[in-house]
Formats: sequence, structure tokens, C-alpha cells
Amino acid sequence: MIDTAILLTSCPDQKGVTAAIADFIYRSNGNIVRVDEHLDTEHNILLVRMEWELSGFAVDMRTFARHFEPIAERFNMHWRAELSSYRPKVAIFVSRYDHCLADLLYRHRLGELPCEIPIVICNHPDVVQWTDFYHIPLQVIEVTKENKKEAEQQQIELLQMLGIDLIVLARYMQVLSPEFLQQFPPHRVINIHHSFLPAFVGGKPHHQAYERGVKLIGATSHYVTEVLDQGPIIEQDVVRVSHRDRIEDLVQKGRDLEKVVLARAVRWHLENRVLLYGKKTAVFP
Amino acid sequence: MIDTAILLTSCPDQKGVTAAIADFIYRSNGNIVRVDEHLDTEHNILLVRMEWELSGFAVDMRTFARHFEPIAERFNMHWRAELSSYRPKVAIFVSRYDHCLADLLYRHRLGELPCEIPIVICNHPDVVQWTDFYHIPLQVIEVTKENKKEAEQQQIELLQMLGIDLIVLARYMQVLSPEFLQQFPPHRVINIHHSFLPAFVGGKPHHQAYERGVKLIGATSHYVTEVLDQGPIIEQDVVRVSHRDRIEDLVQKGRDLEKVVLARAVRWHLENRVLLYGKKTAVFP
Amino acid sequence: MIDTAILLTSCPDQKGVTAAIADFIYRSNGNIVRVDEHLDTEHNILLVRMEWELSGFAVDMRTFARHFEPIAERFNMHWRAELSSYRPKVAIFVSRYDHCLADLLYRHRLGELPCEIPIVICNHPDVVQWTDFYHIPLQVIEVTKENKKEAEQQQIELLQMLGIDLIVLARYMQVLSPEFLQQFPPHRVINIHHSFLPAFVGGKPHHQAYERGVKLIGATSHYVTEVLDQGPIIEQDVVRVSHRDRIEDLVQKGRDLEKVVLARAVRWHLENRVLLYGKKTAVFP
Amino acid sequence: MIDTAILLTSCPDQKGVTAAIADFIYRSNGNIVRVDEHLDTEHNILLVRMEWELSGFAVDMRTFARHFEPIAERFNMHWRAELSSYRPKVAIFVSRYDHCLADLLYRHRLGELPCEIPIVICNHPDVVQWTDFYHIPLQVIEVTKENKKEAEQQQIELLQMLGIDLIVLARYMQVLSPEFLQQFPPHRVINIHHSFLPAFVGGKPHHQAYERGVKLIGATSHYVTEVLDQGPIIEQDVVRVSHRDRIEDLVQKGRDLEKVVLARAVRWHLENRVLLYGKKTAVFP
Repeated sequence: MIDTAILLTSCPDQKGVTAAIADFIYRSNGNIVRVDEHLDTEHNILLVRMEWELSGFAVDMRTFARHFEPIAERFNMHWRAELSSYRPKVAIFVSRYDHCLADLLYRHRLGELPCEIPIVICNHPDVVQWTDFYHIPLQVIEVTKENKKEAEQQQIELLQMLGIDLIVLARYMQVLSPEFLQQFPPHRVINIHHSFLPAFVGGKPHHQAYERGVKLIGATSHYVTEVLDQGPIIEQDVVRVSHRDRIEDLVQKGRDLEKVVLARAVRWHLENRVLLYGKKTAVFP
Repeated sequence: MIDTAILLTSCPDQKGVTAAIADFIYRSNGNIVRVDEHLDTEHNILLVRMEWELSGFAVDMRTFARHFEPIAERFNMHWRAELSSYRPKVAIFVSRYDHCLADLLYRHRLGELPCEIPIVICNHPDVVQWTDFYHIPLQVIEVTKENKKEAEQQQIELLQMLGIDLIVLARYMQVLSPEFLQQFPPHRVINIHHSFLPAFVGGKPHHQAYERGVKLIGATSHYVTEVLDQGPIIEQDVVRVSHRDRIEDLVQKGRDLEKVVLARAVRWHLENRVLLYGKKTAVFP
Repeated sequence: MIDTAILLTSCPDQKGVTAAIADFIYRSNGNIVRVDEHLDTEHNILLVRMEWELSGFAVDMRTFARHFEPIAERFNMHWRAELSSYRPKVAIFVSRYDHCLADLLYRHRLGELPCEIPIVICNHPDVVQWTDFYHIPLQVIEVTKENKKEAEQQQIELLQMLGIDLIVLARYMQVLSPEFLQQFPPHRVINIHHSFLPAFVGGKPHHQAYERGVKLIGATSHYVTEVLDQGPIIEQDVVRVSHRDRIEDLVQKGRDLEKVVLARAVRWHLENRVLLYGKKTAVFP
Repeated sequence: MIDTAILLTSCPDQKGVTAAIADFIYRSNGNIVRVDEHLDTEHNILLVRMEWELSGFAVDMRTFARHFEPIAERFNMHWRAELSSYRPKVAIFVSRYDHCLADLLYRHRLGELPCEIPIVICNHPDVVQWTDFYHIPLQVIEVTKENKKEAEQQQIELLQMLGIDLIVLARYMQVLSPEFLQQFPPHRVINIHHSFLPAFVGGKPHHQAYERGVKLIGATSHYVTEVLDQGPIIEQDVVRVSHRDRIEDLVQKGRDLEKVVLARAVRWHLENRVLLYGKKTAVFP
């Protein structure tokens, strides 16, 4: 893997944005290896993702903001710069169903997910076998109706202490409170929902799908916002089902979907391929 | 194509159903070429589709009911027998968007759809070029808020006069009234909805999908009941979209989906591969 | 799960086959819960899969052959009867890539694969962590050019000693010799090939796919015969790729495919849903 | 639709390419609306697609080459600039099977394909109904073993006279000779092959697929080179089949595939989204 920097910007459309960024990188002796640029004509927002090799790049990335700020101000940009060498710190939340957890940890070990996983947080003790197997620290924090506030406070402190960049809800069966989410805004919490959203919002989507007699079931990975199952969608996929499939068959087929859909979303996020804008995402896979 | 008969039955599960039907056909000198049998354990309903060659079959199919009735009574069956040689009479309803109409007529000419199409009914005059091209009679019946009752009455009379077996709503933009539907029960009216139901029920589903930022859009073909977009689903499919796709791109990708999804549903219906039970379908493609 | 028996038959097409089987089961007080019957008109072969509840069935399944033989003889059948309660003994062969192994063992623990796995045979020692984790016996048998004959003999003895019903080659990198395969005919050895066969037969299919610039890559699960990559196909699937995907990306995407394609094939085999006929399979999923 | 220019370049990777192009457009008062840039690290080739609004652009596009040449020379580029307002002239070649022709003409009328279609060339007279229906000139040129050279000469003269930019082989059953292809290099001839290439190269791919017992069939759209079925692939897709499908079913399912795969490829080509490099394509849909 080449050592690169990735710049993600969004700003009102205006002439000169691409030229200004590309010129800045070129003058700093960077070699651009990939550009993705998209103009949303509905909202007149220009999204840019630019990636360049750091070898020979003249700007110390620790001071990048200072150098880039004039351009950002000129075009009124929201922006962030990331290093491909930086491995974000990811906390995985999980409850009883362990298929997404086991899958993410396996991919992590194979190098598919460029991140650190300093903690798994669970409200069920069963997953210890997986954290032991992969040598990942586990924190069991039971969450009940009564202790929810304290439990979340405990979670927040742990996440902050560890400097967590991203929370992945890998079939975590608790709804995060608005207070929790104020600490971790949308682009820092990814969930997997076991339906093709917005169909079958809420609980027991496989039962709903079975009742309705659909011919495909889906899974959706999205950023988490305060409105349940309404956050910006990162990835979705479906699999064919028939009248032969009982609810347990839907659950089984759903597992395969959920694993790949969540893994793709997490990977794209970690590789800085996802831009949030409005209530949607732009993904440059 | 071999000349066959198809028997479709549903009954409470009980021992001996398959043996009784198969034995009846065998004793009448029929050669069974395909059987599909499914037990819905939730409702304890046994569904059977049995198809046999008519060559040498001893029972005159015009008197089949009389011969089969004892078995049907013994097992408390709902049943119907169909002939593969019978070409159901199909009326296609269409409004302004003609892609499904053009597609169905093309398939019909190629022999993909084993039916007659004695009439196309349209509330828009533009489709005359297609009915002329394929030499299909066209009846333009404008439907407005004011004349809806009369217009539907006119449609019903026409359909009854022509002995229509199946109505296909090929992007027909009017909601059929309960009074209309009492004349043509669910298994006689097939619709195509341009979303992955139950997501985006109702109008402008592509706009809804665009707003929500989904990563797949779908199409759904279903039998029509009195509750809008809630009838038993026959077939669904999806296609991938991204932030690059504007509403007009969704509409364009949707057209390709709608054509194949509707055509599959109609074909399966015509080939007697669909069994309605409860609010669902069993399809034996 | 209901306790059932499954009868799989193939015979020249003739009147009365379905009736004879269904009548036999009915007279023995069996309740048929599913039938799939397919007539291959090209070869005039009739395939039947019939499944019935054993509760109350009057024939002791240990003596089934004796009771059924007259029917089998009358119709010149190839047939076998299986019990859904029987858990076939499966040996998994694996080399260096462990994703299919890990996936199969996970599914096995969740109950997706109705079988016993008394042994994993490996020509690489690395997979011991997985067999330890799932408490499955591991036998490391190194295979080199020089010792291949002895190594296979050792494998055969082990498999026979354990009464193995099915061998699953889960990315096993050795070609089995004709001598080995005489001990284990086609319907007892399942392989996963990491391409959409018959494209990219042989070694390094991902490299071949990359060179050719295909827009989809595939995986194929098939029964193993003496001709490399030519056995009857059980299941295939594909995933979209683009010019952005390097070989390592194809490998990564391929892993996800291989896991689900192999798991589906193994599951269908174990559930007695696969009939081999000629060089093909009929699958009743 | 906005009036835009599209620049497609490929060159050895070097610092400053993006900056130079973007700066050139900016200084000429162009507003860049989309950029796609891909570095092929294997061959060290940088591919750029840049699209900008022409409204207010200071360079007369008829003289673009003169202004851009210094940049092209500096980076040793292959390049071409296109106008979104230019509607390429497309000739469709067709034989007996008319489904792709009918589909392309329908899409053309709906505005899905931004091109002119001044001619359909056919070695079969049956398609006249379609060219009449859509008011497209038809030239029937019979091709036999004996007259092939003369027939191709006649085709070439017609194409040159009409200033044809792109030839689409819509199930055209003749192999174009090397002499013909020298007049129309790869990026000017698109074919649809009714298999998932490179599986089932050559004739009767559906028969080959049927014999092999595959579980998916495909279609491939590719640029035509002198080696049969070996040209750079633009798009592929597949559909599921089973033992139930006879050859005529594969043909029917194949038709639906061929239509959409060819239409996508042609559309992407016309929208200047396809870059040929080596034996492959990069597609920026």
C-alpha cells in the first residue's frame, strides 16, 4: 500500500475549486493518484475527494490545516484531511447475535479493515470467546431500562479514554440515547439494520417481511442519528427468498447479507470513501 | 410444447392428498411431468401443483370437475384445473408511460406470453401507435374525478363482453374502485409498482427513494386488492443506484426493472405457476 | 424440525411413477410434506424428490429398501432414501486459505449445516486455531510431489475409519488423484473453485480475470470428478468488479463469494436437495 | 441537461497532471462539474475524465486542441475532448434477432441514448417494421460467403458517407473482417455477446451453457477487435437459471440480459464514460 493523504471537501459550487486544490497539492510536490468529484445540482454542492502520495510531499501533514485554510476559506468549504496510514480506533458494540462481530474481527485480522479495535462493548457476556480468540479487550456493560443512563455514561467514558474514532453497532440491540449521540455525531456511529430500509423500520423486520410475503429481503448499513433507522444510508443489499423460506430461513439468509453489507460500509468509512451531505451519503468505492 | 393439464389445489394438510391426486391421474392414463408441493406449517395448508400430459388422458377435460369432485370434497380442497393450450384473454390497462405496454406486446409476439390480448384500455390516446403496430384493439376511456364511476362501468362492460380472464395494469395511473375490484377479484388483476414494496407506498416512489438516499431501487408486481399497494406480491427485483443518479436516472433504471418484473409475474400467472394463499403467493417458476 | 424421510429417484419417464411412490407412502401411513418432480425431456428422465413425516410411518426405515424395491424395479429406478435426522459425517479438506473453513465451522455451530464434522484434514498446520476453537479433530497430512500416493492412502484410511459420507474441499490446493476419487465418487466430494466456471479453469483464476478485464467475478461449487474443474455444478454466484479493483481486491471480494457459494452447496447436499444426472445437477432448494 | 465538455486523457503517471488540466479549465473560465481520476499502478498509467460547463468558457471548442496541446505534450498524453451536445452518429447492424434493435430504438426515442441513428444495416429484411416504425433509414445488405468482400465494401462506403462515429452490432451474426476493422478501430465498434465471456466463446453459447449445466447465464458487451470475442469488455451481467430451463428458456432469459447490457455499454460510450487502455476498459458510470 502506498502512503497517501485524502482530502474530502464539500462547498457551494464555484469555479476554481478543483484547480485550487490540485494546484496546492502539486505546488507542494504531491502526486495525485485518485480524484472523485461530484456536483449535486439540486443543492448546488460540490463534493471532492482527492488522494495523493505523501512521498516527497512538502507539507508536514500536522500543519496541513494552516496551509490549506486559505483555500478552504476562499471556497467556504467543509473539509477534512486524512492519512491512509492512520488506523482509526474502532469500538464494536454487540449484543447476543455474534455473526457480524465474528465477521468483522476475521476481516480485521486478514487486513481488510484498516483500523485498530481497542475494545468490544457488549451487553451480553457470550461474545467473550471471540474477543479471546482475537485478543481484543472486551467490556461487558449490561444495559437495562433502569440503568441505561449510567451504562451509557460508562460507555462514553470508556470510548473517550480510548480515543475512539468510530463506533460500529454490530447487531447491538439497544437504542442509543440522544445524549449519547451528542458525544458521537452521525459520521462516527455506523449501524446495521436487518431490512431493506425504509421497509420494515423498527423491530422484528424479518417477521414483518415474512408476513408481507416479500420476494427479496435486505440489509442496510447507515450512520446513526437521533431518529431511529433514519440516518444516512451507506450501503444496502438484498437476497432472494420464496414461500419456502420460514422465518428462521430469513434470519439465516439475513445473516449473510448483514455481514457483507456492514463490512463494506465500515471499510468504505475507514478508507475515507464516504461523504455525508444532507441526509445522504456519497460513496466513492 | 406438450399439451398438458395443470391442477392447482390448496387444502388443510392431511395424509393421502398427493397419493389421491396422482392415483387419479394415473388411473385416467395421464403422464405426470411436474409436481410441486409445499406445506405451509404455519397455517397447516398444503399447496399442490401437478401437471400431466393430455395425450392419452382418459378424462374429457370439459367433465374433469365431475370426476375430480369426490377427491376435492374428501380433502376439502380449493382447486382449479387449467389447460396449457388455453390462452387466457388479457386486457392491458395503461396511461401515459408506455414502456411496460410496449414490452408486453413485444414478448407476446415472440411467444413469451401464452395468452390472447383482445384489448388495450388506455386513459391517454398516445399508445395508439403501439396497438396499431401490433394490431391490438385499443379503447381510449378517459377517467376523471367526475366520470370515474361511468368510466369504470364502461370498462367493466367491455371486459365482460370480451370474456377477459386477467387485467394487467401496465403503469395505469388510476386507482381501481372497490366496486370495480368486486367484479375482478385479486387473482385476476396484476399491477406493477415502481418501488420495492412495502418501501415507498403510494405516489412518486422514485422521488421518495431519491430523498431517502437509498442505494438500491426496486419494482414490485402484485395482485390488486382494495387496499392500495398491499396485495399479494408475485415478484420483485432491484437495481443498484448511487448519489450520481438524479431522479430522471432512477426513472430510467426503474423502467428496465418494471418491464422484467411485470413480465415475469404475468408469465408465471399465465403458466399457472402462482398460488394465492392468505395475503401471499407461492410461485413455482 | 419435523422428522422426515426423503426419497430421491431418477428413472426413464413412464406413467404411474408419482402415483406408485405417493401411494406407497400413503398406504404406509406417511404424510407427504413436499414433492419436487422434474421431467428432463431431452433425456426422458424423470426426477422425483419426495419428503414425508416419519411420525406414524408404518415402515421401519431400516427395512425400507425391501419394501420399496418392487416399485424401484417396476420403474427401473436409481434411488436412495435418506432421513432428515441422520447427520452425515463430513470431512473438510483445507490448505492455507482458511476463510471457507472458518465459515463452515461457524455455520455448523449455528445449526445451518445438519452434519457431523469428525475431522478436518489439512496440508498446512495453520488452521489448528480454528479446529481448536470449534473442538474439531485436526489431522495434518503434508502432501508433496513425492509422497502424494502415501498421503492419499493415509487420507483414505482415515476417512474410511471415520465412516465419512462427504468430503468438502474448502480451498484445498491439491488435485485428488483418480485412485482417490474411485473411493469417493462424484456425489461424495464437493469443491469450491474461485471463478465462474467454465471461465478461468485451472490455476490463478483471479489473475486471469484481472488480465481479461471482466466486470464480474464468480465462484463455483461443484462435485469433483476426475477431469479438473469439470464436475457437475451445484451453485454459482458473482460479484461486480471494476477497473479500480486490483488482484488483491478480487481476492478479497472472491472470499465473500466462495464462502456463501460453498455453504449453499454443502447445505443443499446435506439436506438431500441435489440430484446428479448426467453431467449436471438438479437442485430443489 | 447542462452543456458540458468532457476531456478524456491517459498518460504516464507524473506529478501535476490534474493541476495542469484543472488550472487550464479554470483560467479559461470553465466550471468543473465532475472529475474521475484513476491510477493504474501496474502499468503506471494515469486516466483522467474531467467534465466542465461550457457556459462562459472562454475557449472556442473548435480551437481547443491548439490551446490544450502544450499540456498534452508536456505530459505525453493520449487525449480527446468531447461535447455533451454533440450527438454521435450511430449505425446499428442487425441480423435476424431484433430484440436489441427494438430496445435500442425505443431507448433512443425516449432520450436515453444521446445520439443520431442515421442508418440500420441488416443482412435480413425482417427488421423493416422497426425502422419504419421509428422512421430510421434501413439498408439491407445481404452477406454470403461469396460476396462478403463486396458487401463489406458497400457497408464501409455507406458508413463513411454518413460520417458514422460508432457501429453497434446488435446481435449481428457476421464476423467483421480485419479489413473492415482497420477502417473502424476498437473504440468505434461495440458488440453484444450472449454469454458471460470468456466462458462460451464462439457460437451457440446458450447450447454450451445448457450442456455444462451452469447456474447463471450472462451477456457481455465489448469493443470489437480482430480476435473474435476477445475485445475489451465494457459491461457484463448475469441471470440465474436452473435445471428447469431448457435451451429456449435460456434464449428468452438471455434476451432480457442482452438488451440491458448492450444499452448500458452504448450509453456509457456515448456519454464518454469509457476509457480504453491496454486490453481493458475503465468505465466511470
